[in-house]
Amino acid sequence: ENPLVWIAGPCVIESHDLTLRIAEFLKRTSEELNIPLIFKASFDKANRTSGKSFRGPGLESGLRTLATVKKELGLRVTTDIHEVDQVAAVAEVCDILQIPAFLARQTDLVLSAARTGRVVNVKKGQFMAPWDMKNVAAKMREENNPRLIFTERGSTFGYGNLVNDMRAIPWMQDIGFPVVFDATHSVQTPGSQGSSTGGDRRMVPYLAKAAVAAGCNAIFLETHPNPDKALSDGPNMISLDDLPKLIKTCLRIRDAVKPE
Amino acid sequence: ENPLVWIAGPCVIESHDLTLRIAEFLKRTSEELNIPLIFKASFDKANRTSGKSFRGPGLESGLRTLATVKKELGLRVTTDIHEVDQVAAVAEVCDILQIPAFLARQTDLVLSAARTGRVVNVKKGQFMAPWDMKNVAAKMREENNPRLIFTERGSTFGYGNLVNDMRAIPWMQDIGFPVVFDATHSVQTPGSQGSSTGGDRRMVPYLAKAAVAAGCNAIFLETHPNPDKALSDGPNMISLDDLPKLIKTCLRIRDAVKPE
Amino acid sequence: ENPLVWIAGPCVIESHDLTLRIAEFLKRTSEELNIPLIFKASFDKANRTSGKSFRGPGLESGLRTLATVKKELGLRVTTDIHEVDQVAAVAEVCDILQIPAFLARQTDLVLSAARTGRVVNVKKGQFMAPWDMKNVAAKMREENNPRLIFTERGSTFGYGNLVNDMRAIPWMQDIGFPVVFDATHSVQTPGSQGSSTGGDRRMVPYLAKAAVAAGCNAIFLETHPNPDKALSDGPNMISLDDLPKLIKTCLRIRDAVKPE
Amino acid sequence: ENPLVWIAGPCVIESHDLTLRIAEFLKRTSEELNIPLIFKASFDKANRTSGKSFRGPGLESGLRTLATVKKELGLRVTTDIHEVDQVAAVAEVCDILQIPAFLARQTDLVLSAARTGRVVNVKKGQFMAPWDMKNVAAKMREENNPRLIFTERGSTFGYGNLVNDMRAIPWMQDIGFPVVFDATHSVQTPGSQGSSTGGDRRMVPYLAKAAVAAGCNAIFLETHPNPDKALSDGPNMISLDDLPKLIKTCLRIRDAVKPE
Repeated sequence: ENPLVWIAGPCVIESHDLTLRIAEFLKRTSEELNIPLIFKASFDKANRTSGKSFRGPGLESGLRTLATVKKELGLRVTTDIHEVDQVAAVAEVCDILQIPAFLARQTDLVLSAARTGRVVNVKKGQFMAPWDMKNVAAKMREENNPRLIFTERGSTFGYGNLVNDMRAIPWMQDIGFPVVFDATHSVQTPGSQGSSTGGDRRMVPYLAKAAVAAGCNAIFLETHPNPDKALSDGPNMISLDDLPKLIKTCLRIRDAVKPE
Repeated sequence: ENPLVWIAGPCVIESHDLTLRIAEFLKRTSEELNIPLIFKASFDKANRTSGKSFRGPGLESGLRTLATVKKELGLRVTTDIHEVDQVAAVAEVCDILQIPAFLARQTDLVLSAARTGRVVNVKKGQFMAPWDMKNVAAKMREENNPRLIFTERGSTFGYGNLVNDMRAIPWMQDIGFPVVFDATHSVQTPGSQGSSTGGDRRMVPYLAKAAVAAGCNAIFLETHPNPDKALSDGPNMISLDDLPKLIKTCLRIRDAVKPE
Repeated sequence: ENPLVWIAGPCVIESHDLTLRIAEFLKRTSEELNIPLIFKASFDKANRTSGKSFRGPGLESGLRTLATVKKELGLRVTTDIHEVDQVAAVAEVCDILQIPAFLARQTDLVLSAARTGRVVNVKKGQFMAPWDMKNVAAKMREENNPRLIFTERGSTFGYGNLVNDMRAIPWMQDIGFPVVFDATHSVQTPGSQGSSTGGDRRMVPYLAKAAVAAGCNAIFLETHPNPDKALSDGPNMISLDDLPKLIKTCLRIRDAVKPE
Repeated sequence: ENPLVWIAGPCVIESHDLTLRIAEFLKRTSEELNIPLIFKASFDKANRTSGKSFRGPGLESGLRTLATVKKELGLRVTTDIHEVDQVAAVAEVCDILQIPAFLARQTDLVLSAARTGRVVNVKKGQFMAPWDMKNVAAKMREENNPRLIFTERGSTFGYGNLVNDMRAIPWMQDIGFPVVFDATHSVQTPGSQGSSTGGDRRMVPYLAKAAVAAGCNAIFLETHPNPDKALSDGPNMISLDDLPKLIKTCLRIRDAVKPE
């Protein structure tokens, strides 16, 4: 009871078929390891460093893919929303609405997500302190939606780097909501590759393990059959093949930190 | 020729009449000091720390006020946009469209602002390096709009504080566009007052003077007849009464750094 | 084999007797839990925020106490050095010479410590990147002393705060030396109490557990029978009573992350 | 009256003759521009990134050179001290004792410098907040030496970068002492060249001008006839040839910000 939850999937829906294949792998993995897993993929990468980067299939087509994952595989699904007029459509399909870190303080987006009654996962802005998230909680409360979760995905640390403060996990839990640790975007080095964002995939397991030890409620991970060929966030994603081993290690850590 | 430009006004349109009164003061000041001045006020504070804070009159009413300022006083006007569907209406009235720092990487917002042909003022995100702004420039270029300006408004510096790197001014100018220094939001201490953002008004003149010495092309300043009673950003705004003296000092510095 | 090492003790030698009592507790704990433990206490707090703070018994008297701990309890001992002329005397008693973070780049101090042939534990300066420590390694190499260990104790994060980048652990291990995680000084909020440094003791276990999960080789912890009455670093120390439970949890995590 | 003071010289005494030549140039410049100028050069670079870097002539020989500068040219001189046992000898020759930023919190060094009765210039540690310097002031007060000055030389900003918070100038002046702005070390990128520290000389004038506009009392600048061949801090120093123009611009800014 109170198990470690996993939110996983490719960064963006590259194609319907590839997305389904990844989801099948994750479904199988979740059953084999007996873990709750929510499937995540974006329909639109709305804040790519460069305007020329691949953005995804768009709202309508992307939701069709997510609906298929949900129906055919029985996985719960989540995706990120960027503007108020996307909220209703996304809420029809997705179990969790994810608000990107850059948009964590956009009041209308938070309120409209709250009004759907869905679980809302707000990523802490890279420019926010953990305790600032209590203001997001207040906005949710205005709409009587208590189904809020927070995600730690790094804080701005000089230029072109992020750092994860593991204290953010208990500090945000103090506000009264579960905390997800995003092990993928935390290793980004924003803008470091000129017109795209780099990262250091090798650090993903170190940070995921540390976050579980620090008591996070869930791990968010982007994954791909071949990260080096991924159309977005490749440098940060871990390969599907490496995922089960990391999950098993994290489950053992979770067990190790359980109150006696 | 090539004079220091001023972007000034209250943070938010608190009322039509108060906004007009401030604009009249600024118009008179700009004539007395012979400075180019663009009037700025927000119709909606879309990312207030708290959902309960005053947000402004909204798009339609706000634009009516800005149109009045423009028509009656002959001042150019600017305001900030938050979602794509506001862009067209704002572009009909405003000479400059301002993209907030948190939204500096929202591709659709930048592209739709670019398409209006108006000048677009993109504030550097608190989470971005100065050189990251070249990617914003590339997005503007996709829409063949070269009328881009950048604003420096501080970088995340630990929790609840911002720091201004004065090197950001020449570094962003290197990309090929003019740089505004926002002396108001640079002194914010985000979230420091619990459910609102604090600041240190006393630091505004120090930073404004330093930025002019470092060669910025324009100063952005929020001002109010009584900042302590202002409905947004009061702790950072300087009073109308103190403005002319600061402007005069900055003009002397501008003169002092002019290439011989 | 290759067990998690513990470096523990009070921040400063408050008195000979109290120090011995703490050492006895730690000796007993190390035997009960079967862990390698090195006893640490400072003879002089040479960089207190305020000049009026308690500094310790001084070199001679302090070394006598450490020698007693070593002889009577059979514990290995370590302490920190501040100036070159302390090095020889300390090396006669201590198994490990610790170089404080502020002094990590003082070449003469590092070289003179290296020349003793003792193990040298250099704390990464709060102003240094993990990879900068390779220059410390090169200085040790000049003196043909390969017995180097690094300590992560936080990076400057804005004013009055530190953050631990857990990636520093593998990054410093990449240089080729073991990495200690200092869970006590990492929770300091420098200067936050006006004329002394504050901290948040509650965060110690979260960070210690995260660091073990990230693969650190040792944990450094300051401890005291009554931290609220401690003469230095009280806000960061954990009480002796709470120590065994934390150690046990960390040992379970260590086990959980062991390569299969 | 109350003119802008200059502290200038090469980073390190590379040779007696070169140091004299630079001092002569500076003497002449100070007379031509009618500015108070204090000559600075280090006898030992005690915290070089690499142990193999050139360190200087050492204490005795270095002081002989500084004494010659003082006697033959009538310039006041300053240098930095690293350990307590250097203080007395340096105080015999130098008008100002400079405490390096890394050592700003070493109580014994500050107290022993204070006891000489000389002016003591303490550089704010890259890891300290401006207001932390009040504790240094308290240590000086213990020794009844009110002749304290502070130097701003940048704050740690992520890995391998520093940022100057221009607010540090008025904030440290609030403590009651004059503030020097170090335009040379502020542009360092610590460790960025592998085994030495890099920098961006082009930024020196921008920061110097900004600091004068923000009201600093003095500018510290390292200079060399051929910075690219300098044995320390070359990437940050400006060439002697470029110095007079920068000084003149700063004097005009100083004039521009003078209270009317």
